[in-house]
Amino acid sequence: MADVADLFRRVTTGVYVIGVADGERRNAFTAAWLTQVSFDPLLLALSVNREHASYPLLLSGGGFVANVLRRDQLHLAEAFGTRSGRDQDKLAGIPWRPAPSGAPILTQAIAWLDCRIHDRFAAGDHEIILGRPVAGELVAPDADPLLYQDTGDLDGSRELYPRALG
Amino acid sequence: MADVADLFRRVTTGVYVIGVADGERRNAFTAAWLTQVSFDPLLLALSVNREHASYPLLLSGGGFVANVLRRDQLHLAEAFGTRSGRDQDKLAGIPWRPAPSGAPILTQAIAWLDCRIHDRFAAGDHEIILGRPVAGELVAPDADPLLYQDTGDLDGSRELYPRALG
Repeated sequence: MADVADLFRRVTTGVYVIGVADGERRNAFTAAWLTQVSFDPLLLALSVNREHASYPLLLSGGGFVANVLRRDQLHLAEAFGTRSGRDQDKLAGIPWRPAPSGAPILTQAIAWLDCRIHDRFAAGDHEIILGRPVAGELVAPDADPLLYQDTGDLDGSRELYPRALG
Repeated sequence: MADVADLFRRVTTGVYVIGVADGERRNAFTAAWLTQVSFDPLLLALSVNREHASYPLLLSGGGFVANVLRRDQLHLAEAFGTRSGRDQDKLAGIPWRPAPSGAPILTQAIAWLDCRIHDRFAAGDHEIILGRPVAGELVAPDADPLLYQDTGDLDGSRELYPRALG
């Protein structure tokens, strides 16, 4: 059998910068585990690591903005990744504006969705946040989204997969 | 603002034929709402429509196989789609073999993951099934997965989106 990490790369996702805010406190982090899960009501599921610095802001702010990255925006995925450290202001020097909820919309994102927390559930070492989109915009209709499978080992996740399944 | 359906197409997913089985009763359906959600334990989240004919088989069989479709396998996505009707045997004429769990692996899939149900949660008009992969194979490492955004209006979902958000 091929490597488990290689196998999981065939479960396709995009790459997002997830913006959160509670009042004037703001943060953002790179995530890939996001999918629509319902039509009525319209819901997205985002899987988040509870140990991220953004997690308490996501809860206290009551929502998140999913910023869709473009195929050539690997540098933004990197700038907001866990390897960038939790003590620096990741938003410094990157153009953004507040969504209706206050969470940061990256000006360069090809699309964004501003979501309020609808429900949440434990999912192993992460938590699934169900988000109800209340605003959004397709900024660059002709741009292709970045695929997680094209980010290489940017996030260093390869070592987090088991050696075999079962 | 652009059409909500167009906006949601920027939330990237792959396209899968989800195989289920309970003993000798088998079925399969096309799905796009699948993502990894946890590393330890390794978990996938699949959002399923409880009204699908496959749903009771998924529950009674206790798991599912996610078959990853290749970019040129739109015909398989169509063959297992909801528009193909619930009374016909969708697997007839399509090469498959049983996974360790008994659920169908499509021989032509580029990869497959055999998952047992770890947990499940209500998510609007769907249900999120958390699956723990117990077996899997990357059959065609050089093939590109089909993207949902490239399936056009194959599933007729455009009309299921609201006209506006909020």
